[in-house]
Amino acid sequence: MTIFTRPIIEINLNNIVKNYNYLNSLVGNAESAAVVKDDAYGIGAKEVAKILYDKAGCRTFFVAHGIEGERIRPLVPDAKIYVLQGVGEDSIDGFKSAKLIPVINSLQMYQFWNRNKVEGIEPAIQIETGLNRLGFREEDLKQLPKDDLNNFSLVLSHLACADNQVSFMNKQQLQEFNRLRDMFFPNTPCSLAASDGIFLGHEFSFNIVRLGAAMYGIKTTKENNPSILNTIKISAPILEIAEMTEGQYAGYDITYKAPSNRKIAIVSIGYGDGLPRSLSNHGKVFFETSNGRKEANIIGRVSMDNIICDITELEGLKLGDTAIIIDDQHNLDSFASDCSTIGYEIISRFGKNQRFIRKYIK
Amino acid sequence: MTIFTRPIIEINLNNIVKNYNYLNSLVGNAESAAVVKDDAYGIGAKEVAKILYDKAGCRTFFVAHGIEGERIRPLVPDAKIYVLQGVGEDSIDGFKSAKLIPVINSLQMYQFWNRNKVEGIEPAIQIETGLNRLGFREEDLKQLPKDDLNNFSLVLSHLACADNQVSFMNKQQLQEFNRLRDMFFPNTPCSLAASDGIFLGHEFSFNIVRLGAAMYGIKTTKENNPSILNTIKISAPILEIAEMTEGQYAGYDITYKAPSNRKIAIVSIGYGDGLPRSLSNHGKVFFETSNGRKEANIIGRVSMDNIICDITELEGLKLGDTAIIIDDQHNLDSFASDCSTIGYEIISRFGKNQRFIRKYIK
Repeated sequence: MTIFTRPIIEINLNNIVKNYNYLNSLVGNAESAAVVKDDAYGIGAKEVAKILYDKAGCRTFFVAHGIEGERIRPLVPDAKIYVLQGVGEDSIDGFKSAKLIPVINSLQMYQFWNRNKVEGIEPAIQIETGLNRLGFREEDLKQLPKDDLNNFSLVLSHLACADNQVSFMNKQQLQEFNRLRDMFFPNTPCSLAASDGIFLGHEFSFNIVRLGAAMYGIKTTKENNPSILNTIKISAPILEIAEMTEGQYAGYDITYKAPSNRKIAIVSIGYGDGLPRSLSNHGKVFFETSNGRKEANIIGRVSMDNIICDITELEGLKLGDTAIIIDDQHNLDSFASDCSTIGYEIISRFGKNQRFIRKYIK
Repeated sequence: MTIFTRPIIEINLNNIVKNYNYLNSLVGNAESAAVVKDDAYGIGAKEVAKILYDKAGCRTFFVAHGIEGERIRPLVPDAKIYVLQGVGEDSIDGFKSAKLIPVINSLQMYQFWNRNKVEGIEPAIQIETGLNRLGFREEDLKQLPKDDLNNFSLVLSHLACADNQVSFMNKQQLQEFNRLRDMFFPNTPCSLAASDGIFLGHEFSFNIVRLGAAMYGIKTTKENNPSILNTIKISAPILEIAEMTEGQYAGYDITYKAPSNRKIAIVSIGYGDGLPRSLSNHGKVFFETSNGRKEANIIGRVSMDNIICDITELEGLKLGDTAIIIDDQHNLDSFASDCSTIGYEIISRFGKNQRFIRKYIK
C-alpha cells in the first residue's frame, strides 16, 4: 500500500491538437485561431499555446486580457495575439512590449488607442449583433471617422445561442453581422463563429473561427460528437477508509446521517481545489474496484480539502487508490451537469488549483 | 475619462493582523496558530504568513498540503508548520527539506511515517470525534503501540458545528475529545477549536487554537461581531455603457429580455475570475454614483470575462468607474449568501484569479 495526498490533473495536449485539427478540417478556407483566455480555461495557456503553435501550425490566438497575451508571447513569437477585453491604462505597456492586438469595444477605447497606439499594430473591432455585451452598436459606428474604418485588421462579433442550432438568434445575428460589415467594413476580414458556430454552416465561418470550448473537449452542442475528444482527467487519492455506524453524522453542519452502518472513504480534494461545494450530499465519484468501475456518492458537505464518499458497496479499495472526478466516461459536460452549470466554469475553476499534481500528456 | 480593463482585489493585511490579535485576546493561555491552507484561502499564503510572523508574533501555522508548507517556509524560518492532510509518497521530500510536521490521520500513514520519518520532527495526530472525516477512530488508536503514544507533539480534532453555538454536537465532540485524550494522550498538548470554536467557551481552547475564517473576516457565527474586520475588496471596471431597447436580449442563451428600454454597463469580471455563474440574472453589484452608493442587478448569464449590469436608474456613471463586488458593506458573507454558499468557498475561488490587479494593504 502506498500513500498519496495530492489530487492530480492530467491534461491531454495531444487531444487538444487532435480537436483543433478536427475542427479546422470543418471550416474550409477560414483560419482557425485558438482561444487561450483565462489561462486556457484554467489548464495552462503557455502549454496549450506552445503545442498548438508547434504541432498544429496555429498562428492566431485570442486572450481576454493583455496580461494573458504577455504571458504566452514568448511561446508563440510571430503569432497574432488578439485581446478581447481591449486595452486601457492598466495594460497599454504590455501591448507595446508584447506586440498585442487590441479588440476595440467602444468609441472611448478607440480614442484611448489613438492616443497610445503601438507602431505596426492594426487593431480589431468588435461589433454588437445581439448578445448585448461588448462591442460597437450601429450608432457608435456612425461616429467613427469614415477614413478610420479601414484601420481595422479584423471585425468580430459573438453569437449568443450558437450551442442551440435551432435558435432564431443565430440567423438573426448573422444577418445583422452582414448588414453592419457591408455598411462599414466591406473589405475587412471578419470573425463571427467560436467552436459552436462552426456547426451552424459555412456561412458562419468567414475569415477566422475562434476555437475554444470544443477544442478543450467541451461538447456544448448537446449531441454527442465522437470526434471531439476529452482532454481532462481529474482524480484524488483516498486518505482514509473508515466505518460509520447507523445514526452517526458526517461532515460540517451534520447534513448527512447514516441510515445504516456505512463504509466511507475520505478523499483528498475539496472546494479549495475547485470541486463545487454545491455537490454536498449530491455529487458522485468513481473508483476502479476489483469488480470494475463503480460509482460512489459524496455524503455530507464538501470541505475545503476533502470529500467523504460512501463506499459501502464497493470491494477491495485501499488507501492510495484514487477517486475519479472527471475522465473520458464522466467528462467535463457530465460533471458540469451534476453541478447545474457548464463545462467552461468547471474547468476554469479546477484548472487554477495550485495543489494538483499537474501532468501534461504530449 | 480613463479606461481600465482588469478587475482588482485589495487584501487588507493590517486587518488580518487586527483580527488575529483580537481573536488571540480571547483564548487565554492558548497559543494562536494561523491557518494558511489553500494559499491562505486564496489570498496569498506567503503574504499572510509573513505579516503574521513579523507583526503578530505568530509562530505556528497550519496548511493542508506539504507543498503549501514548502512555499511559506522561507517567510517563517523558525515557525512550526503543521500539514493537515498528512504525508505520503508525493510529499515526503518536501517534509524533509522544509522541516514540516505531518498530522497523522491513519494507522497506515503512521506506518509510512515510521519508515520515512524526518529527524527532529515529532508528528501530530488527528483523532475523530464526530465529524467523520480524517482522523484515528478509537479502534485505530488501540492498535498504536503503547510506547509510541508519547511520540506525538500535538493531538487535534475538528468540530462539525462550531458555527452553531447551540448545537448539541459541540459538547458531544468536546466530551469525546476529552475521553480519547485522557485514555491515550493524557500528557500531550491538544487542539480542538478553529475560529468559531473560540466563541464556544474556554474549555474548547486547550493549548492551540487554529485561526482561519474569522481571521480572514468571515463571520460564520451568524451574529454580527464588529471586532472582526473585513479584509477583502473586489471591484471591476466598466468597459462599456450601452442602451438596450425593449424586447432585446442580453447574454448567452438569451435568458434576459428587456421589459423596457434599459441602460447597461458591461463590467470586466466573470466566472473566469471567480464570480459564480449561478449569479446569472440574480446577483448584484454596487456603484458609487453622483447620488451615492447604488445597487445594480446582474442581467443575463455571467460570462467567463464579463457581467452585464442594469444601470438604468443610476446617474453619472462612465467608463473606468468600478463596480464593487465585495467590500466592507457587502462583505464575503453577504456575497456568499447571494450565492447560496459560504465565504470560504467564495474567497478561495476569487483569490486564485491570475487576472486581478492585486493590492496588499499593510
